Amino acid sequence: MAHHDAVQHDAVEVIIAKRDGGELSDSQIDWVIDAYTHGRVAEEQMSALAMAILLNGMNRHEIARWTEAMIASGERMDFSALSRPTADKHSTGGVGDKITLPLAPLVAACGVAVPQLSGRGLGHTGGTLDKLEAIPGWRADLSNEEMLAQLESVGAVICAAGAHLAPADKKLYALRDVTGTVEAIPLIASSIMSKKIAEGTGSLVLDVKVGTGAFMKDLDRARELATTMVALGRDAGVHTVALLTDMSTPLGLTAGNAIEVAESVEVLAGGGPPDVVELTVALAREMLAGAGVEDLDPAEKLADGTAMDAWRRMIGAQGGDPDAELPRARESHVVNAERTGVLTRLDAMAVGLAAWRLGAGRARKEDPVQAGAGVVWHARPGDTVQQGQPLFTLLTDEPDRFERALASLDGGYDIGTAEEYAATPLIHERIS
Amino acid sequence: MAHHDAVQHDAVEVIIAKRDGGELSDSQIDWVIDAYTHGRVAEEQMSALAMAILLNGMNRHEIARWTEAMIASGERMDFSALSRPTADKHSTGGVGDKITLPLAPLVAACGVAVPQLSGRGLGHTGGTLDKLEAIPGWRADLSNEEMLAQLESVGAVICAAGAHLAPADKKLYALRDVTGTVEAIPLIASSIMSKKIAEGTGSLVLDVKVGTGAFMKDLDRARELATTMVALGRDAGVHTVALLTDMSTPLGLTAGNAIEVAESVEVLAGGGPPDVVELTVALAREMLAGAGVEDLDPAEKLADGTAMDAWRRMIGAQGGDPDAELPRARESHVVNAERTGVLTRLDAMAVGLAAWRLGAGRARKEDPVQAGAGVVWHARPGDTVQQGQPLFTLLTDEPDRFERALASLDGGYDIGTAEEYAATPLIHERIS
Repeated sequence: MAHHDAVQHDAVEVIIAKRDGGELSDSQIDWVIDAYTHGRVAEEQMSALAMAILLNGMNRHEIARWTEAMIASGERMDFSALSRPTADKHSTGGVGDKITLPLAPLVAACGVAVPQLSGRGLGHTGGTLDKLEAIPGWRADLSNEEMLAQLESVGAVICAAGAHLAPADKKLYALRDVTGTVEAIPLIASSIMSKKIAEGTGSLVLDVKVGTGAFMKDLDRARELATTMVALGRDAGVHTVALLTDMSTPLGLTAGNAIEVAESVEVLAGGGPPDVVELTVALAREMLAGAGVEDLDPAEKLADGTAMDAWRRMIGAQGGDPDAELPRARESHVVNAERTGVLTRLDAMAVGLAAWRLGAGRARKEDPVQAGAGVVWHARPGDTVQQGQPLFTLLTDEPDRFERALASLDGGYDIGTAEEYAATPLIHERIS
Repeated sequence: MAHHDAVQHDAVEVIIAKRDGGELSDSQIDWVIDAYTHGRVAEEQMSALAMAILLNGMNRHEIARWTEAMIASGERMDFSALSRPTADKHSTGGVGDKITLPLAPLVAACGVAVPQLSGRGLGHTGGTLDKLEAIPGWRADLSNEEMLAQLESVGAVICAAGAHLAPADKKLYALRDVTGTVEAIPLIASSIMSKKIAEGTGSLVLDVKVGTGAFMKDLDRARELATTMVALGRDAGVHTVALLTDMSTPLGLTAGNAIEVAESVEVLAGGGPPDVVELTVALAREMLAGAGVEDLDPAEKLADGTAMDAWRRMIGAQGGDPDAELPRARESHVVNAERTGVLTRLDAMAVGLAAWRLGAGRARKEDPVQAGAGVVWHARPGDTVQQGQPLFTLLTDEPDRFERALASLDGGYDIGTAEEYAATPLIHERIS
């Protein structure tokens, strides 16, 4: 966006407008994002504004303009020269959520290119790049040219977002993290959508997680976030659909890095946990539909090995060896079922915290992660477990981590009777 | 306050507690003020907290604890060794508000010591130290020992607050100024009262201004601020009373620095504008009553010259020459009444802005002020003016300032009929 005729504003004026419940003008929003990106609005001024936005809200028009201004703070990618349509997926983050790993090659195998710019994990939800970095040789950093070439040749790329993409969002995201202003729907929605729109995808599927292990704990707020993001995508000309999916229970049977890669490869080989397969296929269908491909069944591409072929090419193109043995944790600790019965509850947050405490995640963005660390659970809610049978395997390189990980699992599951078990649907709603 | 057993908190935890409408615990308040003072809570974190406090409020107990924590961030003065009781006055700031100048020596002349720590002006309301610095030789900076000695010998001191007094408040005040978080009653009340309680006065009278030229534009908010501050004073063992007084019209006949000193000396000589005399005497009565002196009429001390004697000693003790000629502006511009009639309205904000634009005030705290600049008005609301008679005299050293000063007076007064004039009481309410 050119700022040739930009009106000069004042940070205090903009803060007070929002503080007093007013609507920010287009000109105020353009000015404050540009000035913040270039350091003319100070961090302490933006944090006061972020708190005022969190408490007083922004309307649809303000959120759209805020998102556009963040996109305009950096470079906007363009894949219109590609020989095939593009589709991307974004998840708001969950425990055991490795869906991107089988999904990107699966969609590529169906003829739709997937330009997925991903992040590293912070807190109890893992990061896609952290998982893929468990594969020996694989690298996350690609130039725009490498990314474009790989999209043309392989059809799928999962890599780190460069500093050129929505720099205002990068700055604001770091600020929100330390100022208690993360939980503002306008700021969450504009943060996600500014990156996804700047990334240049033609269509987008949002996987908005709901439940104990998700950022959004209740369905109403998840629906509000999803609706806001779908509207932002539509306004920006990106075909956008959202699924509200369950995150009260962790996905699959693993939470970690290397162990989630292994589970993803099982799915690509036609096996794997049924919930991971179900969600992967459902999201693939949405991505294909968004890209205008209606006549293919992605489940077949898992069964016939073409998705696995795409995976091998995708990993290989980024220096990874798809046949290499994955790193394994040096130490393991098994938790056995204390009695016989039905696993009636397995709490996603408890499992996520345990994996994080074992070293699979990081507390600060500069921390390293352990490739082999994590939690494997040997039963899913609804399964019958036998007393003394392994229920969890905890993995880490540092045995002093077991104690705190075990503490977070304590109270995080129930073994009861079949009558006490109520199945939760994996996909709650679709918003388009 | 000793922090031997202080609980460790986290800035984000404290911010989120207030953001979500909760009550901050004593331990959270003590920790956040101490950590902010020492730089362990960042400016951007405190600004988010300040915005959350502005929008979600603090209850009486939180405000009291916040005030105590700010006092504990620095030194607390103690005048209990003095041979007489102490009383101080604080004004929330108005146009033409020179009351401290005649008031401090008047109260001293009645046997009550006045330890007044004052500030410089920012924006359209003048600062007491700026006014006194118009007196050749007078200095605002005294050591604690000089202050104590002058209180014993003269009975009144008006000087700058040292950096040792409530340093948390100094830091927070500067932050609030640039983050749109000035207008929070809990933060205004705790800022004023932390300094006044730390200053060590035995009793305190608050002059809370209401009207166009004041920080509080309406009576309800002024009353809330006054009630909050009176409660804080009482909780801290300082006898505290507040008067809500009018600031829709400027005080006296002058707004500036040297010209307000001259007007104050007229009051001390037994003359001066009736409203300045009335408010000075009313505040003096409250200060004397608060200090337990009930049997003296301060009006007599203005009439018999003892207040003037105290003024001369007070100015002289700080290096000032009470007989020196005061600085005069190099340029003046007279505005004549455009018709004959009754002055039905004279707006305090318009006059304050004009004086500020003429150079009597500053826009940034590092700006200098002109000693001779300001506005003299030759009639007060209710007075009859004749067409062509001088209504305002504008004073400045820099004639290019006249144009913008005249613009701010434009629309700032009305000349009408006697029927159109309604007198406003000078003192609205007393809160104790």
